[in-house]
Amino acid sequence: MTQPVWTPPHPLSLEWKGDYLALLDQRRLPAEKVVLQITTAEEVREAIVHLAVRGAPAIGIAAVYGLYLGMRNFQDGEEDAFWQELPRLVDDLNAARPTAVNLSWALKRTAAKVETLRSRSVEELKAAILAEARAIHREDAEVCRRIGEYALTLLKDGMGILTHCNAGGLATAAYGTALAPMYLAHERGWKLKVYADETRPVLQGSRLTAFELQQAGLDVTLICDNMAGAVMKEGKVQVVIVGTDRVAANGDVANKIGTYSVAVLAKAHGIPFYVAAPTSSIDLGTPTGAEIPIEERAAEEITCGFGKATAPEGVQVYNPAFDVTPAEYVTAIITENGIVDPRDKEGLRRVVLHKQTIAEK
Amino acid sequence: MTQPVWTPPHPLSLEWKGDYLALLDQRRLPAEKVVLQITTAEEVREAIVHLAVRGAPAIGIAAVYGLYLGMRNFQDGEEDAFWQELPRLVDDLNAARPTAVNLSWALKRTAAKVETLRSRSVEELKAAILAEARAIHREDAEVCRRIGEYALTLLKDGMGILTHCNAGGLATAAYGTALAPMYLAHERGWKLKVYADETRPVLQGSRLTAFELQQAGLDVTLICDNMAGAVMKEGKVQVVIVGTDRVAANGDVANKIGTYSVAVLAKAHGIPFYVAAPTSSIDLGTPTGAEIPIEERAAEEITCGFGKATAPEGVQVYNPAFDVTPAEYVTAIITENGIVDPRDKEGLRRVVLHKQTIAEK
Repeated sequence: MTQPVWTPPHPLSLEWKGDYLALLDQRRLPAEKVVLQITTAEEVREAIVHLAVRGAPAIGIAAVYGLYLGMRNFQDGEEDAFWQELPRLVDDLNAARPTAVNLSWALKRTAAKVETLRSRSVEELKAAILAEARAIHREDAEVCRRIGEYALTLLKDGMGILTHCNAGGLATAAYGTALAPMYLAHERGWKLKVYADETRPVLQGSRLTAFELQQAGLDVTLICDNMAGAVMKEGKVQVVIVGTDRVAANGDVANKIGTYSVAVLAKAHGIPFYVAAPTSSIDLGTPTGAEIPIEERAAEEITCGFGKATAPEGVQVYNPAFDVTPAEYVTAIITENGIVDPRDKEGLRRVVLHKQTIAEK
Repeated sequence: MTQPVWTPPHPLSLEWKGDYLALLDQRRLPAEKVVLQITTAEEVREAIVHLAVRGAPAIGIAAVYGLYLGMRNFQDGEEDAFWQELPRLVDDLNAARPTAVNLSWALKRTAAKVETLRSRSVEELKAAILAEARAIHREDAEVCRRIGEYALTLLKDGMGILTHCNAGGLATAAYGTALAPMYLAHERGWKLKVYADETRPVLQGSRLTAFELQQAGLDVTLICDNMAGAVMKEGKVQVVIVGTDRVAANGDVANKIGTYSVAVLAKAHGIPFYVAAPTSSIDLGTPTGAEIPIEERAAEEITCGFGKATAPEGVQVYNPAFDVTPAEYVTAIITENGIVDPRDKEGLRRVVLHKQTIAEK
C-alpha cells in the first residue's frame, strides 16, 4: 500500500519506482524540476550531504532506500558478506548529516528489524529492508496528516502564521509537519495568511515553502528572515509553527538556523511558538539541546550562495546549519500522538514510547 | 579644507572632483570597484534611488552635490529661473528616498543658506551651494570621528560586537557611525571581534561592512541575519551597535529592516543595543516612529537579488526597507555631541539643538 492518505497538493520529494529511488532535486527548485534516478547507496549519501533531499523525515526515508540499494546486489549464500556490510553501510549513511535524528532513527529501526531475521536467506533479508523502507515512507505521510489534525486544533480561520525553513511536503513523504495543518485548513476553505521566512543561507523558505504552498493555492507571502520581528510587531502573525531536526529529552528543539531567533521574537510579542515533530524526531537518548551535534556547513553557502560572490574573498564566516531553542520558548510540541508541553518530560516520554494520545493543551 | 580628520582605512563612498562627483558604485561591491562620474542632478537622484550610493549621511551629501550639479548651468541674469528651479530640484532630490531624514536635512540646510543670499548673483548662489556641499561633506567625517570617540567609551578591548547593515565609511563621508569606534579601537591595537549580519535583501552587511572592515584589517565574521540570536546565546556578542536613518523625537529609531529583530534579541540576552546617530539623523519634527515613512521596495530584491530566481514566479512578497525600533529597546544613542538616553526627550532635544556635550551614560 503506497496509497497516500490524502492526495498531496504539492510535488513529492521522493518516490520508490520499483528498482530505483526518484528524488526531486531540491537544490534546483523552484527554477527547475529535475528528478534524480538514484540507484546506489553512495548516490543517496551524496544526495543527503549535498541537500538534493533534505528535511529530517525525508532524509530518514531516503537513507533506508539507500540501505536497500547498497545491499541489493548480495546473493543467497553471501550471508557472511551481507552481515559484514550492513552495519558499515548503516554507519556510512548515518554520517551523512549529524543533526537530524530521523536519519539514525530510520536506519536503526530497519537494522533492528533485519536483525530479527538473522537465520533468513539474503533474498529475504533484502526484501525485509525494502519492506521497512516502504513502511517508513508510508507511515510518514500518515504521521504528517495526524500532526496536521492536531495542529489544526490550535489554529483559527483568518490567522497569520509564520514558518521558518521548509517543514512541508518536500521535507517529508507528504504534507509536511509544520505545513500539514495549513494544507488541511486550506481544504476546509479557511483563509490563512502564511508568512514564509526565506531562510538563509540555503533559502528553503523561498525556494521550497513558498513554492509548495503556492503550487497548492495557499496564500503565502515571502519575507526575509530579518523581517520576522517587524511582521510580528505589525500584528500580521498570530502563531508560529516550525518543524524540527531533533527534540532532546528535556524538550530543547534543534531546527534550522534562525529558529531560535524566531522563538525569542515570538515570546517577546506574546505569540505562541509551536514545533511540529513526528515522534521519530524526539530523541530521548539526548538529554538536552547541548548534546545535539550542530552541523557547520561551508562558508560558500553564505558568500556565494547565488552563483555569484556576495561577500569579499577570504572573509571569515560562521555557518551553523541549526540552532537549539530551549524548551522554555516552545509553547507546545505537536506530534502524531498528540500535543505535549516540552517542559513536561514525562509527557514527552509518554508520547514517544507509548504512542498514547495526550490530552490537548 | 577637505583634509580628512584621519586617514580613512576604507574606500571612500564619494569624492568631489572639481567638476563632477565620483561615486563608488556600491551595488557592484565587493566584486567590482566601479567609480561613477556623476555630472547631473538626475544622475544623483538615480544613484540614490537605485542604491549606487546609500547610507543616510552619504545620500544627504550626494544630494547637495546633486543640487549644485542641477543648478550650475544657470548664468548671471537668470536669477528668476534660478529661484524657480531651486525648490523644484530640492523636492525632486528629496523624493529619491523617504526614510532617511539626512536627505531632507542636508537639502533644507543648503536651501536655507542660499535663501540668505537672495540679492546675490547666480554665480555667487551657485558657489554658495557648492560650498555648502563641501562643508556638509567635510563636517560628516568630523561628526563620524566624534561619534567614534564617544562610542569607544562604551567598548572594551576583546569585546564581540554585532552590527547590522552598513553604517560604515561607505555610508558616510568617512569612518562611518556604528563602525567608527571599531576603526578607532583597531588603531589603538584593541582586538575586537565584529559580527556582521549579511542584511538581506541587499546584503549591505556582507557586501559592504565585511568588505570595508576586512580592507582595514579588522577581525570581522560574516553571519546570516537569522544567526544573530544564536551568536548572542553562545556568548559571542557583548554589544550591538547600528546606525540609523531617522530618530524620532520620542527616541524611536528607524533603521535598515531587521534592526528591530536584533534589538529585541539583544534585550532578551541582556546585551546593550546602541544606535550611532549624527544629530542630522535626529528629526525632532517627527513625533514618534509611527510617523516615519517606511519605504517598500521591489519584490525582485528578495526573489532574484543575485541575478537568479530564488523564489517561485509570482509569489507575494513583503519588502519593507526599514523598520522602527521603539526607544525602550535602545540602550543609548551616540551622537557627535554626546551619548543620550533615547527615552530622555529633553536630552535628545538638547543634543540636537544646543550641540552641548551630554554627560556620558
